[in-house]
Amino acid sequence: MSSTFLKESLSILERTPATLNALLRDLPEAWTTATEGPDTWSPYDVMGHLVHGERDDWMKRLEIILEHGPSRTFDPFDRQAQFRESAGKSLPMLLDEFMALRQDNLKRLRELDLQPAQFELQGTHPTLGTVTMRQLLSAWTAHDLAHLLQVSRVMAKRYKQETGPWARFLSVMK
Amino acid sequence: MSSTFLKESLSILERTPATLNALLRDLPEAWTTATEGPDTWSPYDVMGHLVHGERDDWMKRLEIILEHGPSRTFDPFDRQAQFRESAGKSLPMLLDEFMALRQDNLKRLRELDLQPAQFELQGTHPTLGTVTMRQLLSAWTAHDLAHLLQVSRVMAKRYKQETGPWARFLSVMK
Repeated sequence: MSSTFLKESLSILERTPATLNALLRDLPEAWTTATEGPDTWSPYDVMGHLVHGERDDWMKRLEIILEHGPSRTFDPFDRQAQFRESAGKSLPMLLDEFMALRQDNLKRLRELDLQPAQFELQGTHPTLGTVTMRQLLSAWTAHDLAHLLQVSRVMAKRYKQETGPWARFLSVMK
Repeated sequence: MSSTFLKESLSILERTPATLNALLRDLPEAWTTATEGPDTWSPYDVMGHLVHGERDDWMKRLEIILEHGPSRTFDPFDRQAQFRESAGKSLPMLLDEFMALRQDNLKRLRELDLQPAQFELQGTHPTLGTVTMRQLLSAWTAHDLAHLLQVSRVMAKRYKQETGPWARFLSVMK
């Protein structure tokens, strides 16, 4: 692999499914269905969103950049899709699905053997306008970490009252 | 196990070492030594702090509550200890150490076979004053999640510039 940037991004992208699996599989539902209040996401909702992203977002857009450049605007991504698509699926099913889709996407990404010059190729995001391949790969990577952060935050806050005076020492509780 | 509270707390406490292992082991150092600026912690620093906590904080204090109640104030916990104690240790060594210490602590905790009435036992924290066993177990659990959140945040922010316009959609970048 020719690029430190790509290698470092892949090192996160390939670890996320196992990380979420270690954290969430077979956890009591009180944790995995906890939210931060109305219209916020539970860990279960986040997993559905990540599954949908593997299917409809990152690699699809990367391939649009490679095939069409900025001339073909990306399809909008449905940030509520998981509420429809996860119906009837257990959390372990979503964890399995995410792992399989991610493995497949990273296999395709490696086969593309992207060269540094290609990171500057441009695409058109329906809201953000001009973006580069490098920004897309970075956003995919940071998006994984942002949702791991979210899952950790949602679950930590479930214990806000339980921790009593210790909440003072835990900035997540503020 | 007699208590849903204890079972739910243990379900997080027992998963944290594997979660951090899946996320951090063999990750490029650019990620594991990243910080949020001067006097902030890297993922490596966090792992040293978690190791020190297993050795000197949670179970030690729990046992002080059981043996002495509120009459014996907990020893202060050194939140900078990892900068001394991690010296010369690789991140994989810290991950292994954390896993072994946590397993040992949870084995001892299970052997205590705590009953719900014992969750109301009181201890004396050097800064926070009176705390209960239940608050201590909750804080231990939430502390794991808070540091998983921190590690995710530190690493996500490393890509703030890289994500370009996508930073708008990632609240962690704000």
